Amino acid sequence: MDNILIHGQSDVLQALRGAQQPAFVCTIASSDTAAIEGLSIAGASAEMRKYTAPSDMEALFYGSARCIPGVAATPDGIPSPVIITMAAIGATKLPIFVVDAGCEVAPQTPYFKLGAAPARSIVTGSTVDDVPGLFERGWYLGENLAKLTDFLILGESVPAGTTTALAVMLALGMDAEGKVSSTMIGGAHDLKAAIVAEGFAAAGISKGSLKDDPLAAIAAVGDPMQAVVAGMASSASLSIPVMLAGGTQMAAVAAVMDRVGKADMGKVCIGTTRWVLRDQDADMIGLAIQAGCPRVYAANLDFGSARFDGMHIYEAGLVKEGAGAGGAAVASLSFGGLEPAELVSRIEDVYEATVLPMLGGAAGAR
Amino acid sequence: MDNILIHGQSDVLQALRGAQQPAFVCTIASSDTAAIEGLSIAGASAEMRKYTAPSDMEALFYGSARCIPGVAATPDGIPSPVIITMAAIGATKLPIFVVDAGCEVAPQTPYFKLGAAPARSIVTGSTVDDVPGLFERGWYLGENLAKLTDFLILGESVPAGTTTALAVMLALGMDAEGKVSSTMIGGAHDLKAAIVAEGFAAAGISKGSLKDDPLAAIAAVGDPMQAVVAGMASSASLSIPVMLAGGTQMAAVAAVMDRVGKADMGKVCIGTTRWVLRDQDADMIGLAIQAGCPRVYAANLDFGSARFDGMHIYEAGLVKEGAGAGGAAVASLSFGGLEPAELVSRIEDVYEATVLPMLGGAAGAR
Repeated sequence: MDNILIHGQSDVLQALRGAQQPAFVCTIASSDTAAIEGLSIAGASAEMRKYTAPSDMEALFYGSARCIPGVAATPDGIPSPVIITMAAIGATKLPIFVVDAGCEVAPQTPYFKLGAAPARSIVTGSTVDDVPGLFERGWYLGENLAKLTDFLILGESVPAGTTTALAVMLALGMDAEGKVSSTMIGGAHDLKAAIVAEGFAAAGISKGSLKDDPLAAIAAVGDPMQAVVAGMASSASLSIPVMLAGGTQMAAVAAVMDRVGKADMGKVCIGTTRWVLRDQDADMIGLAIQAGCPRVYAANLDFGSARFDGMHIYEAGLVKEGAGAGGAAVASLSFGGLEPAELVSRIEDVYEATVLPMLGGAAGAR
Repeated sequence: MDNILIHGQSDVLQALRGAQQPAFVCTIASSDTAAIEGLSIAGASAEMRKYTAPSDMEALFYGSARCIPGVAATPDGIPSPVIITMAAIGATKLPIFVVDAGCEVAPQTPYFKLGAAPARSIVTGSTVDDVPGLFERGWYLGENLAKLTDFLILGESVPAGTTTALAVMLALGMDAEGKVSSTMIGGAHDLKAAIVAEGFAAAGISKGSLKDDPLAAIAAVGDPMQAVVAGMASSASLSIPVMLAGGTQMAAVAAVMDRVGKADMGKVCIGTTRWVLRDQDADMIGLAIQAGCPRVYAANLDFGSARFDGMHIYEAGLVKEGAGAGGAAVASLSFGGLEPAELVSRIEDVYEATVLPMLGGAAGAR
């Protein structure tokens, strides 16, 4: 079994394997789109979803969240994929930096403030203010970070982010219908399509009508993370290789970078999980190719024999990815020299320390 | 003429000279103390002083400020010392990171948000909230940055910061009366002493009464920059050498680090300007030694033959230091390999490009 599943050229993965000091940056944002019932289960409720992104970052820094107990979880108690990121970062000791692109609740960690406000709901057709400013500040941050590290791994945590990803990719004219992944089994494609259609109508746009103005697509139906990460990855890619660490949300970011035209897309890859790559209800590779980012690497993790039921659920197709889990895992399996079984064991340790206490003892153990 | 004036051991300076990739971080904050007339001329008026720190950071990123035209200046139009930092960073291409420890006006740059609010006036005796949180977030930021760089240069821009520095050093029991530097000739020592006495009375403290609780000294009469930089420099010093880039304000930061007791003070130095070191109305070296940070390096710049009158004023004893000017200059003269004359010429270029247009043409030229 391969440790890492590779689509496209492996050159960027090789660069990560041989890097001196990669750095992990996670960009977070929130969006009123996440309050629409049925779109996202990244959080126990609509009210709780505003804490998902900041709590992920706090867990990454401190071992458990501060704005909520433990870590974020779905309504059924399945823990945030940040437990994968925590284990992978713990193994590799990568430096971590948080970027707030626009969060309703700020994380209680050090963070870069690049955005002022969460996104409005996609149904307004006017989601993000000052997209050029977000892109520009991302650009300067990426340029400065690229002077200090030789490989940048850029994660994200944005509840309902696959819906804004779908909307942006459609505005760019990509064949994206039914192709984005989801925290949920089945993908909620019909609901997402209906919400996006409502946003398009409100914005007065149609499929492909913003193919020449990617920042306008974000302003109409996207989220602030997309603008910030596209800027950061674009400038960094001019000097170092960059991994967009996430699922189909990162295909939207790559597409924006490709259409803005300031990046070296030959130095950019997407790093994700096997659960996204093999998602029968999505098409990660198809989107990546259309986005002009054909290099996709997926951590070949299997939770089927994990010690905790809450991890088995990942094999059933829930959660799948987020908080840079896939990319951080790829880093631990390449740069970090871990075997997948070692990483799974470390994730079990994080689960035991962080998630079990939330469940009131050993309830989650087999 | 020596390029750099050295007090104490030169080992940390040697480390800077041989560093692979130093990084420059500037922490900014604002404080209602700066609204007291006569304390600070870091800005054209009390109203304008709230823009001094953010405009310094914008000038550093973009070549001129965005929240005000050009760069900040004194009421008489003498430009902010950020013009020195701009020239030194331009020459060395150091990566730059801004940290907002608590600013009334946020900079229009990427920045780390570590603090929530400006300091209240020192006369309240209760200036800064959540000092342990500021120190802790600074600690984590320093720890992560130290994984990416082998030398950290930490500047500051805090109007009226020498008054809060004086207050904290006195609360720690240091012999600091009449020893802090100032943007003004003469040092305004009597006014500073009176303001500090008012703050001590309001806080119910006396000289030395907080010698065992340095964070409480900041909470009573300090500013948020002190807590953040002390945390950042403390954690970083455990793995890499650190330069506190500033004048007597940095003696207060060093004293807090020394009294908190988590830093390796043998890897910490102060980097400043000749104008601070030779200030007849202050005692930089005496304060540094009392602070437990005896290594002080000063850029030996002379503006006496500069092409612009606005620069000559520095030789008369105004402005002197700020926005990490001295430390950045030391970096350009050691790591960067510049001669002082080359740096002065670059500062003239910055003055010509940034300050002259504010003066309406060639008004400032000889």
